[in-house]
Amino acid sequence: MDAALRQSKAMCPFMKKATAAGLRAMTTAARPALLAPPASPCGGTISKLQVLARRCPVMGKAMAVQSARLGHASLAGGVGSVAGLSTLSGHGKSAKAKLHTGRAHEAQAVEGSLFREKVQLPPRIPVKPQQHAAASPTIAAHVGAHDGHNSKFDYDGFYNAELDKKHKDKSYRYFNNINRLAKEFPRAHMANKEEKVTVWCANDYLGMGRNPHVLKTMHETLDEYGAGAGGTRNISGHNRHAVELEHTIAKLHAKEGALVFSSCYVANDATLATLGSKMPDCVILSDSLNHASMIQGIRHSGARKVIFKHNDVEDLEQKLAALPLHVPKIIAFESVYSMCGSIGPIEEICDLAEKYSAITFLDEVHAVGMYGPHGAGVAEHLDFEAHAAGRPRGTVVDRVDIITGTLGKAYGCVGGYIAGSNKLVDTVRSLAPGFIFTTSLPPAVMAGARAAIEYQMEYNGDRRLQQLHTRAVKEALSGRDIPVIPNPSHIVPILVGNAALAKQASDKLLQDHQIYVQSINYPTVPVGQERLRITPTPGHTKEYRDHLVAAIESIWNELGIKRTSDWAAEGGFIGVGDPAGSAEAQSPLWTDEQLGIADAVRELRAVSPVGLTERLLEHETKEREEAANAQATVTTAAAAA
Amino acid sequence: MDAALRQSKAMCPFMKKATAAGLRAMTTAARPALLAPPASPCGGTISKLQVLARRCPVMGKAMAVQSARLGHASLAGGVGSVAGLSTLSGHGKSAKAKLHTGRAHEAQAVEGSLFREKVQLPPRIPVKPQQHAAASPTIAAHVGAHDGHNSKFDYDGFYNAELDKKHKDKSYRYFNNINRLAKEFPRAHMANKEEKVTVWCANDYLGMGRNPHVLKTMHETLDEYGAGAGGTRNISGHNRHAVELEHTIAKLHAKEGALVFSSCYVANDATLATLGSKMPDCVILSDSLNHASMIQGIRHSGARKVIFKHNDVEDLEQKLAALPLHVPKIIAFESVYSMCGSIGPIEEICDLAEKYSAITFLDEVHAVGMYGPHGAGVAEHLDFEAHAAGRPRGTVVDRVDIITGTLGKAYGCVGGYIAGSNKLVDTVRSLAPGFIFTTSLPPAVMAGARAAIEYQMEYNGDRRLQQLHTRAVKEALSGRDIPVIPNPSHIVPILVGNAALAKQASDKLLQDHQIYVQSINYPTVPVGQERLRITPTPGHTKEYRDHLVAAIESIWNELGIKRTSDWAAEGGFIGVGDPAGSAEAQSPLWTDEQLGIADAVRELRAVSPVGLTERLLEHETKEREEAANAQATVTTAAAAA
Repeated sequence: MDAALRQSKAMCPFMKKATAAGLRAMTTAARPALLAPPASPCGGTISKLQVLARRCPVMGKAMAVQSARLGHASLAGGVGSVAGLSTLSGHGKSAKAKLHTGRAHEAQAVEGSLFREKVQLPPRIPVKPQQHAAASPTIAAHVGAHDGHNSKFDYDGFYNAELDKKHKDKSYRYFNNINRLAKEFPRAHMANKEEKVTVWCANDYLGMGRNPHVLKTMHETLDEYGAGAGGTRNISGHNRHAVELEHTIAKLHAKEGALVFSSCYVANDATLATLGSKMPDCVILSDSLNHASMIQGIRHSGARKVIFKHNDVEDLEQKLAALPLHVPKIIAFESVYSMCGSIGPIEEICDLAEKYSAITFLDEVHAVGMYGPHGAGVAEHLDFEAHAAGRPRGTVVDRVDIITGTLGKAYGCVGGYIAGSNKLVDTVRSLAPGFIFTTSLPPAVMAGARAAIEYQMEYNGDRRLQQLHTRAVKEALSGRDIPVIPNPSHIVPILVGNAALAKQASDKLLQDHQIYVQSINYPTVPVGQERLRITPTPGHTKEYRDHLVAAIESIWNELGIKRTSDWAAEGGFIGVGDPAGSAEAQSPLWTDEQLGIADAVRELRAVSPVGLTERLLEHETKEREEAANAQATVTTAAAAA
Repeated sequence: MDAALRQSKAMCPFMKKATAAGLRAMTTAARPALLAPPASPCGGTISKLQVLARRCPVMGKAMAVQSARLGHASLAGGVGSVAGLSTLSGHGKSAKAKLHTGRAHEAQAVEGSLFREKVQLPPRIPVKPQQHAAASPTIAAHVGAHDGHNSKFDYDGFYNAELDKKHKDKSYRYFNNINRLAKEFPRAHMANKEEKVTVWCANDYLGMGRNPHVLKTMHETLDEYGAGAGGTRNISGHNRHAVELEHTIAKLHAKEGALVFSSCYVANDATLATLGSKMPDCVILSDSLNHASMIQGIRHSGARKVIFKHNDVEDLEQKLAALPLHVPKIIAFESVYSMCGSIGPIEEICDLAEKYSAITFLDEVHAVGMYGPHGAGVAEHLDFEAHAAGRPRGTVVDRVDIITGTLGKAYGCVGGYIAGSNKLVDTVRSLAPGFIFTTSLPPAVMAGARAAIEYQMEYNGDRRLQQLHTRAVKEALSGRDIPVIPNPSHIVPILVGNAALAKQASDKLLQDHQIYVQSINYPTVPVGQERLRITPTPGHTKEYRDHLVAAIESIWNELGIKRTSDWAAEGGFIGVGDPAGSAEAQSPLWTDEQLGIADAVRELRAVSPVGLTERLLEHETKEREEAANAQATVTTAAAAA
């Protein structure tokens, strides 16, 4: 170890200055995300040394490689081991053991080799070919003969090994063939057209994918302007559909400008990568549960990355305060975190951004269309009255610097975007390769998306009904002791806590009950937090809801999956079975007043609190029917007169 | 300098071993791409030291930043300067001068500062906040007060400065509002519907964007399955359209499997980034003119990158031979290079890949639909007869490991893909975040794209006519001394050689002649190689061609743009005015025999070689009309009988 440390000190400007005590202090602060239950509903913390190591161009790469090889949810695990720093921390032994467990046969194959002795060197330091030799442990696993030096790399062996790893850790994905039927929403057929199922996990949250207004617009555009855009935005792919769509998006978010991308994955990746790489010495502060697209964008930027604990403004403030005021900083976070349904503290983050001179990058992908009087997202929702009255100035929306969103979820089409000041948008437009060098979205898609946004700006009935259906499902499941992870949004995550069980539950729902709910396993969520993620829509009427709840009840019994009370008996886990923590967490963002049900709720609750929303919906249905009948009577009478 | 070198040697394992003489040898081999005419039609070479520096995680980053700041086409210029290595090379002085020219005001602002003295350190080494100080030269430019330490970063100032740079180097992009009309192909209207233009630069090469078969399929799919896919491939976005499209693509390229992405930008980026980062110690060999998507993918992989000279198999072999056999290697290249129309030596590269145990990654984006008996691209075209007879085994197609293509150009829709072995495809499917975490393409887009591919697999009339129109345009322009950059493909690049002139020519074509041809400036092509890029389609009939040629002739006169003879008088440039070099380069890939015009060409050439293809097309039109008349006569006679 001492030799390794000396060697590191000789080469690395950081290690040169670090003291052993300082390093130890930074490592013992570590809390392995996979061993102890994390503080946040979706978990994950890392040590200071790990944060620093991630920023280092040499260590960061080594960590990423190491983490990928270990097949771990957390990037943290392998850090110490790679640099020989593990013995500095209290977890040294176990971390080292883990390393060898993960790649035992590979390590054996190269025992005592030249490269092995220099394992502290990262693979990217330019070395002469001879130094590579037959030595790299993972290469050794994929070369045919004993003497790797004269053998070819076994590409097929590499593919097989990568796939084997996925099979072994149960993260291999089997796609279900789901053909969502526009005229039978939320129904779909499987590979066989006769085999129909109810889709309970799509992100077409409002059913806009089958909205007649959207489809009519798309048909017309298709006829007039054809199938594709025919080029990049710069070369014949810029058109009225792009102009109008970006104008509508800017208006939706009360921003000066907007820019449309192939997807919001590309929008997030390209925008963060561009700003982070171009702003000198930029630091990006990233919520620990941020989406893969943001994580990639930050990685691609090469900027320094500081991860703050999920939705933890105190932690964020500490990290901001530690940075010099003059350094450019981007705080990247989400409004609705799609896998647990938690909601980001947007206003508090805007306060911090102003205090510490950072800009805010807010991903509203799962919120656009769904929140706020015009469907502009959670930021709009926070100043509901002001936006309903058309006064965006000074609101939270107005304070967020960059809002990103999708056209592929609540708006039912495909594509993504950013919205912000004209200068910002023009800068990204001018510099981001992921925007510049790609074919524009088809005219019909852009026109359809615009129609969807405008429809939802005018009409809030879909998102209101979606919220009521969400409440009804959550209440029904909770009433049956099914462990819904508490949250204030439209996502209904049901905790399973085991990869194989989650897949089994999903398969059984499909095969035995004709209900499609994909299981969500690692790496989308950490190991041990596997879940079913249910997304109600306005189309999920009572018979679908009853069917779903009964099916889940039956599968939970059949497979013996833990109930909320089981989790509670263990002290609770990520909010499940933790009544103290969950009460606040699950108070819905859409209030009774905003849904226009405050009076009805009071009346119904006075009778009984059980199945409240279901009774409310029944009540509303009856009212609508009576109104329709009355209208019919009037019409008939008028016709008779 | 000596101090800098000593410091580098202390910190860097490469520099520690390098001798001054060795370093000098590696730098003097440099050939600045912008000063001397390069060997290839589209240019660009770099020194050995630069290649090594690019591989280094520290220097590579510094070079990228430096290059971006200098606003240079070549990454080469700034290398030496950054690390203080410039004085080792013969170009030391000028490189240093360039550095200061590019950022004079910034350099002044920090003269003598702490950070300045440590300028050899890259920005990404983890330093304590205090070390950043008010020091970074580029930060200093964007902080308000004299004492940057207590000032906020000026985000708006940063955006303004970035945009100013684009304006100054004439790379700022002004988008033209072009609405391509399905029923009037290749016509479009501008922002004003009454203002019509002819589009001569779209990538809808075959007019499939308005193909009735494609549109009918899309309309039907839209009605049945709605606007969007509703989720990622793993979560409700996988459907029969994806399955069938991938099946069709695999069949097209005679591969086991295929995978569809949002775009081919994403396909290239995600695939190279994934393979390059996962294969241990992977080296990616990249053609110097590769598309931005591949460049990004390689960068994102973190793998070692070795650039070989454009289409230069000797250079590639040297570079392959220098790498150990057992190290995994990917050779990334294109079939048709879209900005100059050159064609990659696919077969030779496959030979080298086999010899040196590399895999091949071939981007056929501009070739799919356009070449080969089924439109599978240039690789298919190379074994025309075998593929026409349905015998793909042992052909070049069969030997390429990974083929990538687009659904957004010749196939008229949007989206991209890879095709290869099942194991390879499954590995990318399982590991690439850019595939996993993004919403699937809409069902209608996937169905439309599949219809387009199948249509072009059955029918080669569109690509044949496209080739004839290309020949006619090239002949007509060359006949008027207009400098077409010679190439064997369907691209017609006209050399202008000046950014302002190219934009002026494009603007004049649009305003004075209602012809839309976007000018192609830096950074899409190197400075000094600015051009108009013309893409004929089957829809560009004689009147459009005559109109185009006359308009270009008039603008060349008006603006005094150089003719081919002018370039020839200067000794030729990138193939223009260089009859020896260009003869072979422009021999079309589609031979007379493959186009079925060999006999007609012989007959017509015997009369006169002038306007050969135009006369041929006239001849064919007459024949078609006569056949139609004969058919009509027969029908009339039959009806009368």
